[in-house]
Amino acid sequence: MKPILLTQGDGAGIGPELIVKAWAQRPPGPATVVGSAAVLRRALAQCGLQRPLAVLDTPDEPAPPGALAVWEPPGLPDSLLVGEQGQVRADCGRAAARCIETAVAAIQAGQGSGLVTAPIHKEALHAAGVNYPGHTEMLQALAGVPAVRMMLVNEELRVVLVTVHVALREAVNLVTRASVRDTVRMLDAALRGPFDLAAPRIAVAGLNPHAGEGGLFGDEELREIAPAVADCRAVGINAQGPFAPDTVFMRARTGEFDAVVAMTHDQGLIPIKYLGLDEGVNLTLGLPFVRTSPDHGTAFDIAGRGLADPRSLLAAWRLAARLSDQRVAPAFAAGSKAAS
Amino acid sequence: MKPILLTQGDGAGIGPELIVKAWAQRPPGPATVVGSAAVLRRALAQCGLQRPLAVLDTPDEPAPPGALAVWEPPGLPDSLLVGEQGQVRADCGRAAARCIETAVAAIQAGQGSGLVTAPIHKEALHAAGVNYPGHTEMLQALAGVPAVRMMLVNEELRVVLVTVHVALREAVNLVTRASVRDTVRMLDAALRGPFDLAAPRIAVAGLNPHAGEGGLFGDEELREIAPAVADCRAVGINAQGPFAPDTVFMRARTGEFDAVVAMTHDQGLIPIKYLGLDEGVNLTLGLPFVRTSPDHGTAFDIAGRGLADPRSLLAAWRLAARLSDQRVAPAFAAGSKAAS
Repeated sequence: MKPILLTQGDGAGIGPELIVKAWAQRPPGPATVVGSAAVLRRALAQCGLQRPLAVLDTPDEPAPPGALAVWEPPGLPDSLLVGEQGQVRADCGRAAARCIETAVAAIQAGQGSGLVTAPIHKEALHAAGVNYPGHTEMLQALAGVPAVRMMLVNEELRVVLVTVHVALREAVNLVTRASVRDTVRMLDAALRGPFDLAAPRIAVAGLNPHAGEGGLFGDEELREIAPAVADCRAVGINAQGPFAPDTVFMRARTGEFDAVVAMTHDQGLIPIKYLGLDEGVNLTLGLPFVRTSPDHGTAFDIAGRGLADPRSLLAAWRLAARLSDQRVAPAFAAGSKAAS
Repeated sequence: MKPILLTQGDGAGIGPELIVKAWAQRPPGPATVVGSAAVLRRALAQCGLQRPLAVLDTPDEPAPPGALAVWEPPGLPDSLLVGEQGQVRADCGRAAARCIETAVAAIQAGQGSGLVTAPIHKEALHAAGVNYPGHTEMLQALAGVPAVRMMLVNEELRVVLVTVHVALREAVNLVTRASVRDTVRMLDAALRGPFDLAAPRIAVAGLNPHAGEGGLFGDEELREIAPAVADCRAVGINAQGPFAPDTVFMRARTGEFDAVVAMTHDQGLIPIKYLGLDEGVNLTLGLPFVRTSPDHGTAFDIAGRGLADPRSLLAAWRLAARLSDQRVAPAFAAGSKAAS
């Protein structure tokens, strides 16, 4: 079986620390870090950890047991250990982008089974001339798929966003019958496939207070969302709604639904983040492979000090392993239609 | 001291049941129900409770100990016990409105110290020719004040809404420097006054994802919200923000702020309701008296069956008693500038 590939993220942030800390508790199965061996050695030292590095020739070369397996993409800048961590650096942005590009190419070449990405910094990417707002858009372009969706998973909730990084004033225009329908379908496919739920119960949130209260506080529910739910039900998807946004997440939390489709970034992220759970995972729907990431950023303020908490990265790693490899989690094998 | 006045709400709903159930656990101090003695007797029977009723001549007449004190407003319909509960009825809507009108008049006449309102039904009000969308708007009109705000309080959070029952598409236009500034000021006054906090820490949420990320996802933060925060800080209010909406409630929950100003209905209500806490209370800011209510509706589906859970009404009652009467809660007396 092929390894999970982990990109080290922005080397000026906490990504390398997260990876070296998480390695000891990683899920079963092979894994390879796509990054700089020198940066990872520095991270081991900064975290007070000792572990041999195995620098591989290809991403899927088997590594000796116990060693931290790393594959260095060609073309990494030489300057990564020069200068300070904890700030926006073009070289670190360039290296982060290079790791992502080569990791995706490796998966497309059959050398990896899934992708876990450590945090990158948008401004560092920008300084390197890589103008994506984040991982999701970059991965969509690299994979050449028409649409992706951001899914958030923690111990209590599964939430998928119809709109993400856009002004609220604009987001209301992007909540359309087609965008909601596509989101529900992508979610249903993920729940039936990688998540192995036989009959997933999907709640669709409204956009407006009280889900519009019959058109009194906005008509997007009547014009767009309810028709999208009907479209999905017509093809056998157990979608329900639109429901009042202020109670649908509480209802999902207590088990009434398997997942919620949220219309806006904060409608979905406020409940996901409310309890401050340490094991939130970001999962990208729509890619031809499994991709997860922690739900936090580069944390420049604590980078290089060995303080980073690897729990969210570990949860992302475990979820990627579980979803992308049936042998790792037999309970997920029956009837599974893997996303890849 | 004057009694807390409790309006019985829509008699076809659970309001009367809530009140008779809550009576045994009510906070110290006098209280009078403004409602129909016949409806309250029926609620006692439906809940399997026995308690004498004292029908008062004025709202502030002292009642015998142990008796459920009720004052009947003139002009209640005679038909309240005829026909079914659990449905929209014009007579019940008319009675509910009459109780609210007379309770406010009684408080304005010095016969009550604060108001707790049991749930009403908008369509029943409408059927009775009373065209307010809810309590808040009706109380604003009865009190003749220029602006009110809805505040939600539970065991974890205090949240005030800048916009409430309006389409999201329209809400973004109502988030103005003036509306945000007025909300922060009303909240600060409430926290310093009735809530007796010497130096309240107020977090102001943004409107857009990541609070606009410097104008990238919307500029309401730069144009309206940040200037409003500056206006408030200039007059000595410890307001901070605008903060990313997806983490500000989690930060308040863990003690970083005393209260949060939310821009929209669901931005504020999703975190308030997420945990399904049973003791959420709605508090109206801007009125010349304290007014609280439970955070749920008439629950027509269970009305008349003795099943209603009085915890939210009891929490509303306790909060109204605490905020409106310094003698009841001495800890709230020092430096208190009562709202009335």
